[in-house]
Amino acid sequence: MFKKILIANRGEIALRIIRTCREMGIKTVAVYSKADEESLHVRFADEAVCIGPPPSSESYLKISNIIAAAEITNADAIHPGYGFLAENARFSKICEEHNIKFIGASPEMIERMGDKASAKATMKEAGVPCVPGSEGVIPDFETCKKLAKETGYPVMLKASAGGGGKGMRAVWKEENLEDAWESARQESKAAFGNNDMYMEKLIEEPRHIEIQVVGDSTGKACHLSERDCSIQRRHQKLTEETPSPFMTKKLRNDMGLAAVKAAEFIKYEGAGTVEFLVDKHRNFYFMEMNTRIQVEHPITEQVIDFDLIREQILVAAGVPISGKHYTPNLHSIECRINAEDPYNDFRPSPGKITVLHAPGGHGVRLDTHVYAGYTIPPNYDSMIAKLITTAQTRDEAINKMKRALDEFVIEGVKTTIPFHRQLMDHPDYVAGNYTTAFMNTWKMNEPEEEE
Amino acid sequence: MFKKILIANRGEIALRIIRTCREMGIKTVAVYSKADEESLHVRFADEAVCIGPPPSSESYLKISNIIAAAEITNADAIHPGYGFLAENARFSKICEEHNIKFIGASPEMIERMGDKASAKATMKEAGVPCVPGSEGVIPDFETCKKLAKETGYPVMLKASAGGGGKGMRAVWKEENLEDAWESARQESKAAFGNNDMYMEKLIEEPRHIEIQVVGDSTGKACHLSERDCSIQRRHQKLTEETPSPFMTKKLRNDMGLAAVKAAEFIKYEGAGTVEFLVDKHRNFYFMEMNTRIQVEHPITEQVIDFDLIREQILVAAGVPISGKHYTPNLHSIECRINAEDPYNDFRPSPGKITVLHAPGGHGVRLDTHVYAGYTIPPNYDSMIAKLITTAQTRDEAINKMKRALDEFVIEGVKTTIPFHRQLMDHPDYVAGNYTTAFMNTWKMNEPEEEE
Repeated sequence: MFKKILIANRGEIALRIIRTCREMGIKTVAVYSKADEESLHVRFADEAVCIGPPPSSESYLKISNIIAAAEITNADAIHPGYGFLAENARFSKICEEHNIKFIGASPEMIERMGDKASAKATMKEAGVPCVPGSEGVIPDFETCKKLAKETGYPVMLKASAGGGGKGMRAVWKEENLEDAWESARQESKAAFGNNDMYMEKLIEEPRHIEIQVVGDSTGKACHLSERDCSIQRRHQKLTEETPSPFMTKKLRNDMGLAAVKAAEFIKYEGAGTVEFLVDKHRNFYFMEMNTRIQVEHPITEQVIDFDLIREQILVAAGVPISGKHYTPNLHSIECRINAEDPYNDFRPSPGKITVLHAPGGHGVRLDTHVYAGYTIPPNYDSMIAKLITTAQTRDEAINKMKRALDEFVIEGVKTTIPFHRQLMDHPDYVAGNYTTAFMNTWKMNEPEEEE
Repeated sequence: MFKKILIANRGEIALRIIRTCREMGIKTVAVYSKADEESLHVRFADEAVCIGPPPSSESYLKISNIIAAAEITNADAIHPGYGFLAENARFSKICEEHNIKFIGASPEMIERMGDKASAKATMKEAGVPCVPGSEGVIPDFETCKKLAKETGYPVMLKASAGGGGKGMRAVWKEENLEDAWESARQESKAAFGNNDMYMEKLIEEPRHIEIQVVGDSTGKACHLSERDCSIQRRHQKLTEETPSPFMTKKLRNDMGLAAVKAAEFIKYEGAGTVEFLVDKHRNFYFMEMNTRIQVEHPITEQVIDFDLIREQILVAAGVPISGKHYTPNLHSIECRINAEDPYNDFRPSPGKITVLHAPGGHGVRLDTHVYAGYTIPPNYDSMIAKLITTAQTRDEAINKMKRALDEFVIEGVKTTIPFHRQLMDHPDYVAGNYTTAFMNTWKMNEPEEEE
């Protein structure tokens, strides 16, 4: 087993990893930027090394400094957390070259799964369903028409150079295809100076549902059920839950086996997540694979009763996994508490936390690196806490979340607590009736007057 | 279902009950003494009524004031928590007379189980093993000798008027009985002016192991496995765990069925606990039954995944229980954090909490009514928090507890955190090798010098 692990990250995930290391009797090294001197991950690690100033390019992304910190402190492994260098093939390779175990995917694996096109090609080869469509640019309208027929309507035309919705057209019937083709090409030409188009099947009422997998060095993988992450704002997840209210036994089985097939095909080692889009007919399509721990991993831990960071460390140390697939008997929800003003377009709200009272009691878990007196620096992600509630049923987990949000006091900065509190009362959320479009249409109520 | 529940208690258990009521959509009424105005149970309830000044006889034990508070606020049920009026037959009866549902045992049940002699007689009738011995005072030495033979050595002679160890003799062989009889009688006469003696089987290396039961109005009961509460100081539990490290599958089954037999024999309704002494040969003997929720109920909740307060409320509302017996798959430990100085004979340390940082993360639960800025009044029990860790194995739960205790910061008052931290490293505790005598012999290490 490792003697000392350096955690190449900050905030709650650095603290999360340190906690498990302590419980396993493994020494820890925190690295930190000058902006993070006050952070709990620095206080709770056995050793801490300052690796530079903000921004991240000068510290948390500075590979040479991190490797130097590991060598100085004699760390025999590095856990990258999520974000920063967690999916950086070069970093994984440099760790390897320095004989430091990278607790994550191999450079080859990261490269293979990091590039969307190569990931999709690999998954197709493995027999995992991918969103059907054109292979690259469509040469002419006749090909487009033929392809749309093969793919099946509705389809989505997308400008290769596209972004921000420009040059995109949803087409539901063949009779509308030619108009859409022409107008999308013109729009793309005008916006990007390029009218190359490709096509994908349009995913109707899509949900973002991902499967947690763990693979080991013997090539075996297992799945730990799904997480529904459809509630997103500008592709940022806001709250997640497991099981998905949209899930059926058959769909879980099919998606779980597809994810295991994906992981075993590439001989994936460690904890990973296979993200799928699921349409209203419960067809599912591979989106991407994250070769790291996810922010939302705690909800899986709550329903399977074990520690995923521990599992990552064990697998990295060569311990084989049990190989058992898990079906949750409980329900767990995570709300990401960000230092943002939900009433003001989620504008970041860094600054000093003057008062903090954490919720507690039955079924409540809180993962946070902040405390009363802590100053949230403006340099990083605004997530300051993950509040997780777990109960026997979804209704109970929602009620527990409401109760915990009501108890949670953070003063000095704005937070997304009021957002989550309103969300937990939204009839569509309560009914489990939501897609990735949820946040496009929902407008929060104005803040209540202070008494 | 009840519309509004008054909680006739204070501190963490009042807050605990309020939390579950909120989650169930039931309104709550807190009652409080003038010393408790700042307590969270007052802040988090929907309504709060001051019922008098400290001491408890003027407020939390003042039945008339509590009933008045319930009538003023239109509460349709009262939850008594533990302590105070939780096992007061008169209170239970007065609630009944006022058409307020008492969420606990009936007056008859409390009377039957509250008196030790009648409880023991009832349990004998039910066929639950009780500590063998004399039925009351032993008339003469010949009877004593005969009885000791029947009971089986070792036996314990006890002065009827005894206390503080005076007039007690452990006897391991018949040849020593007469000397012990004479000297104990003389000692008792000298100390108490009375030489009446009775006899009980001596329980060798006793453990305090209790079984959680839940019974419903149909007369059915189920057991939710055991809690080992052997680590006690002056009969006050300090830490508890489930499963007991001393437990075997057979013993759990036998004790569980005995507890269910006890509960069903008296048609027990609600959550209750049957306390047993278990000797080194794994014989077990009924000690007493607590007709209320216990302080240490959370460890059971952690391993069975449901809410016992919710269960109490449902049963009180007439909902039948599932009747399933539970065997834990996880391990959970509770440390009672008291505002006491463990380095100074556990002397109470009331006062203002200046800094509070709660531990969190995977497998950590904290039940507390205190917060930074809260002043612990000197009038009540010194328990200020219950820290509970849960993991797949006992070793992991201990390691998690160590980690959580290390993270827990309370400044301004002394607490028992350092006691628990040392206990978690004690070789006998770690080996699960402890009895109720543990605290008689263990001396803590002196406090470490502050850095």
